[in-house]
This record gives sequence, C-alpha cells and structure tokens, in this order.
Amino acid sequence: MKILETHYGKSRVRLARIVRDANRHDFHEMTVAIDLQGDFDASYSEGDNSAVVATDSMKNMVYGLAADPAVTHPETFGLLLGQELLGRYAHVSRAQIELAEHIWHRHGPFSFTAGPSHRRVARIDAARDQVTIEAGVTGFVLLRTAGSAFEGFIRDLWTTLPETSDRIMATSFDATWRYCREDVSWGTSWHGVMKLITDTFAEHDSKSVQHTLHAIGEAVLAQCEHVDRIRLVMPNKHYLCVQGDVFCPTDEPHGLIEATLSR
Amino acid sequence: MKILETHYGKSRVRLARIVRDANRHDFHEMTVAIDLQGDFDASYSEGDNSAVVATDSMKNMVYGLAADPAVTHPETFGLLLGQELLGRYAHVSRAQIELAEHIWHRHGPFSFTAGPSHRRVARIDAARDQVTIEAGVTGFVLLRTAGSAFEGFIRDLWTTLPETSDRIMATSFDATWRYCREDVSWGTSWHGVMKLITDTFAEHDSKSVQHTLHAIGEAVLAQCEHVDRIRLVMPNKHYLCVQGDVFCPTDEPHGLIEATLSR
Amino acid sequence: MKILETHYGKSRVRLARIVRDANRHDFHEMTVAIDLQGDFDASYSEGDNSAVVATDSMKNMVYGLAADPAVTHPETFGLLLGQELLGRYAHVSRAQIELAEHIWHRHGPFSFTAGPSHRRVARIDAARDQVTIEAGVTGFVLLRTAGSAFEGFIRDLWTTLPETSDRIMATSFDATWRYCREDVSWGTSWHGVMKLITDTFAEHDSKSVQHTLHAIGEAVLAQCEHVDRIRLVMPNKHYLCVQGDVFCPTDEPHGLIEATLSR
Amino acid sequence: MKILETHYGKSRVRLARIVRDANRHDFHEMTVAIDLQGDFDASYSEGDNSAVVATDSMKNMVYGLAADPAVTHPETFGLLLGQELLGRYAHVSRAQIELAEHIWHRHGPFSFTAGPSHRRVARIDAARDQVTIEAGVTGFVLLRTAGSAFEGFIRDLWTTLPETSDRIMATSFDATWRYCREDVSWGTSWHGVMKLITDTFAEHDSKSVQHTLHAIGEAVLAQCEHVDRIRLVMPNKHYLCVQGDVFCPTDEPHGLIEATLSR
Repeated sequence: MKILETHYGKSRVRLARIVRDANRHDFHEMTVAIDLQGDFDASYSEGDNSAVVATDSMKNMVYGLAADPAVTHPETFGLLLGQELLGRYAHVSRAQIELAEHIWHRHGPFSFTAGPSHRRVARIDAARDQVTIEAGVTGFVLLRTAGSAFEGFIRDLWTTLPETSDRIMATSFDATWRYCREDVSWGTSWHGVMKLITDTFAEHDSKSVQHTLHAIGEAVLAQCEHVDRIRLVMPNKHYLCVQGDVFCPTDEPHGLIEATLSR
Repeated sequence: MKILETHYGKSRVRLARIVRDANRHDFHEMTVAIDLQGDFDASYSEGDNSAVVATDSMKNMVYGLAADPAVTHPETFGLLLGQELLGRYAHVSRAQIELAEHIWHRHGPFSFTAGPSHRRVARIDAARDQVTIEAGVTGFVLLRTAGSAFEGFIRDLWTTLPETSDRIMATSFDATWRYCREDVSWGTSWHGVMKLITDTFAEHDSKSVQHTLHAIGEAVLAQCEHVDRIRLVMPNKHYLCVQGDVFCPTDEPHGLIEATLSR
Repeated sequence: MKILETHYGKSRVRLARIVRDANRHDFHEMTVAIDLQGDFDASYSEGDNSAVVATDSMKNMVYGLAADPAVTHPETFGLLLGQELLGRYAHVSRAQIELAEHIWHRHGPFSFTAGPSHRRVARIDAARDQVTIEAGVTGFVLLRTAGSAFEGFIRDLWTTLPETSDRIMATSFDATWRYCREDVSWGTSWHGVMKLITDTFAEHDSKSVQHTLHAIGEAVLAQCEHVDRIRLVMPNKHYLCVQGDVFCPTDEPHGLIEATLSR
Repeated sequence: MKILETHYGKSRVRLARIVRDANRHDFHEMTVAIDLQGDFDASYSEGDNSAVVATDSMKNMVYGLAADPAVTHPETFGLLLGQELLGRYAHVSRAQIELAEHIWHRHGPFSFTAGPSHRRVARIDAARDQVTIEAGVTGFVLLRTAGSAFEGFIRDLWTTLPETSDRIMATSFDATWRYCREDVSWGTSWHGVMKLITDTFAEHDSKSVQHTLHAIGEAVLAQCEHVDRIRLVMPNKHYLCVQGDVFCPTDEPHGLIEATLSR
C-alpha cells in the first residue's frame, strides 16, 4: 500500500481581538484553519507521534500570535502563521492557512453591528520555496432586476425553459484572486476588487451567468496589476416568475458556474 | 378524548416582488407563514375535509395578493392577508400571519447587495373582534467592547466565573413590539425602534444583560407612544478571554435573557 | 413601565457521560437548557445582581450533577436539576429544564455509531407547588407511500391543488406528552409511545395530515394510561409528483399541522 | 486574458422514486449534481449561448431518466446520466455526476423512517476516453470510549495538551473509494466497505486519528480487490473531559486529518 498524500491540521479556530485606543476601539473577528503537509508518514503507518504537532498546539499558536501588533489583515496574520509553522518545524514542507474575517460595522467608538453575511477570506500557501497569497470573498450575495437575458441555448428533448430577454439574476458569489506581489495594501486592494465585482455584476449587459462571470474576471485582471489569476464561482440562485412582477425565490436546485481566468 | 387546541397553515412561503419605475426598481423579498384556527375539528376527528382550506391554496393567496399596489410593508401585507382569510372563510376564527423581510441594500438603480442577516418581521394576529399588529426584528447582532460589567452575583458551590468590570457584550437580538394604533408609518416606526435598540445597547452603563435589556425596553416605551408592549430576547453570546485583548467567540453554551415589558 | 414577565438561563449546555463496566461501556449524550423565573426584577430595573445565579454557574451545575449514578434518563436528570435549583435558591419560583438526548447505536462493547437525527426530549417544569414532567421527540422523520389521500377540501378562487386518493405523506414529527404520574419507567414508556406513533402513522387510513395526527393522539391516550395530554406538530413535507413514480422532495413551503389533545 | 478552466452544471437536484410491487414498495431518495466541461468558451467570452445546455435541461434529464428500471443504485444512475450527457452533446468532454442517497429504514411494506444522517455517495467522472467510478460516504459519525491514546507528540512553546492513554475518539467520516472494475455489485460492495470502516474504527489499537485512518485504508485495500484507491477525511470531534467520566462535546475548533491511499 502507498500513501499518496496526507495533510492534517486544525479547523474553525475562532478568534476576536480588540485594538484599544483611548477614544475608540477597533474590533476584529475571524475564523482560522491550518493544514500541514510534511514528513508525517510514520504517524499514519506506525502510530509514531514523535513528529506530530498536536492540532491543539496549532490552536494555541493562533491565539498566541493574534496579539502581534503587525496583525491588521487576514493576509498579514496568515503570513505570520506560515512563517512560524515553517520556521519552527523543519519537517513541515507546506502550511496552508485559511482565514475568514467576519465583517462588523462600526456604530459608535466602542460598539458594532454585524455586517453582511459574506466573509473576507485569505489563503496563504507557504511552501519552502514559494509562498502564494490569495484573497477573496465567500457568500457575497448580489441581485439585479434588469439587463439580464438568457436566450439562444440548446433546445432539445430535455428543454422546457423558455428563452427570456429580462430576468432576475442573483448569486452568492465566491471569488479568490492570487497576488503576484507582496507589497500590496491588503485592505485597499480587497475593497477595490469588491467594487469591481459589484459594479460589473450590476452594469454588465448580461447574456448569461457565464458571460457576466467572464466580464467580472476581465475587469479585475485589467485593472488590478497585482492580481494575476482569479477563480470565480457563481451559483445561479433562481427567482422563478409566478406572475408579472411576483417571483418565488428558491434554494434548490441551483445552477453552478465556475471559471479560473489568468493574464 | 378532547381536542384542546388545533391550528394549521403554510410556512416558509418565499416571495419576491419588483416594483418598477422607468429609472429605477424597488425590490422586496420576504418569507410568509399563515396559521389558521377555527371550526376544523371534524377534519381531525372524522377526516372530513369539507371545511379545510388547503395549505397549497394559502400559498396561492400569498402570491395572488403580493402584487397589490398597497403592499409596501410587511405589516400592510399581513393585514391584507388577514382580511382575505377572515373575509372569505366564515369558519376561520383567527388567522395569524408572520412575515420576515430580507433586507437588500440598493447598489444601483436596478441592482442590490444582500444586507445584514437580521430580518425585519411583522406578526398580524387577526381575530373576529380584534386585530393585533406586532413588528420586530430577529437575529440582530450587536457587540460592544467597553462599558459592560458583571459583578456582585451569587457566589456559591457552583460558581467559578470571576467578576468583571469590563467585558465584551454581544447578542443576537430578537424583539417584538405591539402597536396600540393602526395609523402608524410602519417603515419610519421600525427604523425608529431599531435606532433606539442600537443606541441604548451601545451607550447604556451596563451592569448585566438583564440591565441593558430593561433599559432598551424603557427607551422604546418612553419614546414610541404608539408602542404599548415589547418583548425582548437576548442571548448572551460569550467571548471568552484567552489573554489580554484576544478572545475566543463561542456559540454554545450561551446565556438567554428574556422579558416582556409594557406601559 | 411594568415588567410583565422575565426569565433567563443557560442554553445549549452539551454533555456526554461514560458509564463504565469492565466489559462494556454505556454512552450518553445530551444537550440541556435551564430557564429560571423568580424574584429577579431588581437585576433588570436596577442592575442589582445580588440575586442573580450566573448562567455560568448553571452550566457548572449541569456538569457537576451529571455524574450522579441516578442519572440514567433525561427525565431523571431534569428532575434532579429542578430539585437543586429550587432547593438551593429560595427566590427561584420556577425552573424549566429541557433535555435533548442524542441517540447513539451500540456497535461493540466500547464503540457506537450515530443514530437517526431525531432526539428524545424531556421537559421538566418545576414550580414550588407542582412539577410537570413531559417527554417527547423532535425531528422524527416518517414517510409512507400508500394509503394517504387528500380529497374533498374547499375549492375556490385560490385552489389549484388537484384532489388525490394516493400520495406520499412525509413529516418531521415533534411530539410532547405529559405524564400524570411519576412512577413511570421512562425509557420503556418513551419507546412505547414512539412505537404507537410510528405504527399509527404507517397504518392509518389517512384522509389528511390532520386526520392522521388525531389518530396518533388517540392511540397514545388510549393505550398509555400514565399520559394525560399530548401535543403533536406535523409539518407536511411535500413530495411533488414529477411524473409517474418520480417525485421532487421540497423543504419550502411546507404545511404545518398542530394539535393538543387530552383525555 | 486566458481562460484556464471552466465548468458548470446543476446542483441539489432532489429526487425520489417509488418502485411498486403489489405487496410492498421500495423507496429511493437522492440529491444529484451535474457538472460539465467542454467547448463552452464562447459562452463566457462572447455571451454566445448556442452550445449551452441549460442547467434547467439537466434537471429535466435527471427526472426523465430517474424512472429507468435499471436505476437501482447511485452508481448505476450516475453512469446512465454520464452516457446521456456525453452521447447527446458532442462538445461535452467531461461530465461529473455526484449522487447522495438519503438512507430510509423500512418500517412496513409501505412505510419508512429516516435513517442515520450520513449519506451514501457516488461520483461518476465520465470523460471521452475513461470513466471513473467512485463510491463513498459522507457524514458517517462514529465514537469509541476505549482503546484510543494520543501520546509522544511534540512538546514545545505552543503545547498545553496533556498526553493521554485513554480518550474518547469521535469523528464524522467522509470517505471515497475508487473502483478499478465495473462488474461490481454496488450495494454489496458499499455495505462491505462500510463494515470494514466501522469495525476497524472500533477495534484498532489507536495511537492517533492518523493511525486509525491508515488502518482503515489498509483494511479496505487489503480486503476489497475491486478498490484501488481510497481517500479518507476524519475530523477529530473533541470531547473535552470536564471531570471523571463527564465530557463536554464541542464542534469548534476541531482537528482535521486527511489521506489518500492506494495499492
């Protein structure tokens, strides 16, 4: 028997942090997952734990490094965790860290309301010879009520869907884009890509979800020179017309459109 | 055997509606539940369906009335459904309608992004002799990082929690308030109560969740003369201190504080 | 302003316990919620915590009493918690305890597989003068493919549903029954009621969900003399016919039928 | 800009089917997802839908083929869908079909109760030159109360976890195994692998989750000659010891151990 691949780690480590100023607090909350690859085969085949970093220790590391003053963005925190994991454990060949930031809206100097349900995400893939930094969003829900068509598709034995030149288009967007540089202002860049996604979704003369997905990728790659690849996942959340301007929103079944685009 | 109480209806009827203007669309989405009481005992005891309004017909009624131009708020739509149910079916003694509006933020004239995960709710309890109108919110998540204490509670065999003069207070708020008048501007009123809840939560010098809950109810009843009763449910979403300003957010277990206050 | 009602407590306290024998372990897992009423008004109106039992202390009490050898059923454990709460805190007038047991199937002497997703529940309502003991089930999913009709209901403007003499009937059952005695064998009784529910659902000549719900209540009250009241909640989980014997299961919308029956 | 990869399809198509016999019905329920790759670039870049199979048509295909008498297992149904998709659409290069069967327990000739929450899954990856058939399980929850240790792992700055020679081990298992032949009795094989997983989990002298995962893979590959690869994902669902034999089950954070093993 051969071991083709193994990895292991700790998921759903939840973390919050107050950054205090006399007159005002900042508040950060995120969920972190760590996943390691390396020379761990003996733990699987022999039950030899001498090289095993307990996943409980990974959790402690997340909390221990969370107070570092440099930690202001998920990208920064992920890079710090990657450095610690590769630096401390010589037999770890690759550490993948996923971070999902919960968005809080400021209400007052010390108070906050929960923001939208989408999460800002970052993924750090730290190997010995290369570190890949990706940012993104998960669960970003968008809807438009005009300018979206779906016509000219294959009509055959299985087709009952009418063509339409005017439909509701709605999605719960997942996107991940790769940075080709490390000297990026992480927050500014994230908000910039989010604005391109939102504006393009809203304004594109859409022939299909595929068509709009492509336009979004094109806009991001054209205008963000520090991004060299983007992966887009767009479920088609159907709003079925009942009559006139009254619709029935449905969760299942749903279309699912995915593409990876690069320069 | 006695039938002490029965009711039945249709839940999770999902509905969206576009209100079109040449230059701009409004978009409304809500989930509706209808629940009827009345002279239905024979359907239970004898299987006699002659008085049964099929729940599928209730669903059709929701979609059929949704295009009414008067329908601009959940309170209005619930009242319309109540009138139709009591007006059409003489053996129905009471119709309860719950409506939960999904909050969309306008992005452009024809485009929207999903708002926060809380829902604006309305509950219409329409009996032959009286109609009760309640509005509220479910899942309204609030957090503050200063001005919240919990001290002086009972210390005994079961107590390990340290007293604290400074903790994170966070909740996922459910509130329902009853209107004592029908000539209310539903939208303005809802936003007014929400602002009182948010501001009081943020600014109250809090000795406990109970204390702040009471202050919120007091503020709403003092300042909204068209509201005569309010029910407040505040889970205490604990953020456990790990060290310094680093915390672990937890979902379970959680405290749960509830009160009903009236003039 | 008047305080009409308050209560507070701790929810989602998760608990597991091994009962060891040399040759075999028993394993119990449940989720507990405690809710107190009593003389707590000053904590709300004044922020005076001197009478407050911290919800964290309630959690400690659950774990502290969980090892009691008498605790073998949720009913027993709930009664024990109720006694401790009323006995220790003279200002508590009423303690309500909800317990939901996770069902594990034995695989070997020390190993288990997760059972069905329904939970065995118990609710203890302990006041100074009276203790009410209820048992029940939540999320009990049942389906039958023959012997279920729905005909003869009202046909009017809102009706499109065809009558049918043969449909799939499916539900996710919630039931709670009240015991009129305390000398009940809790486990045997629970399994007995569950068998009556399951058999009656399967074999009743059903004219509607209402009709079958009533038949189930009748069977339980007729055959279990230690039960004097039962509340039944049956969502109608629709399986929409696509063609012939092929169906589309749906979660929303769904019918919802409820009744409380007594001797 | 380059399109590196695209795929699209329909997810969460829910399906039920009665197979009738005079004296008894069989009942099957599953959720299906279809995902296509092929010559679709113009739909993305140009909005040219002439090659697009509407995802609504895929849904119709699922329902249209579901009544085929040959369809008795998810593997069979997935293969049928793959043949139809590749056979009818010459520009489709690859069709991936995922099927998740909901497990119902027979109660009577025409009645059923919901089984455990895990699902039997099958994945058909149908390309022009090769078809890969995988079967598996998702969400299979297992627990053991003896014979599980975790000792000898790295102790350093981040370590606080005590070593233990006796702990609760619990997991919610995902497994997928690849068949190297098509002449397999799908149902018998699935139940055989499930028994190996369950027995090995229960009986293995476990030094860690990794160790037991490896033992499970070894057992399956050794005893199922028609399986040539298996992927195993085992979250470590922690039961934290409170005192003695009383534990607190937790959902987050959790360990996550994964491996792919082959002959």
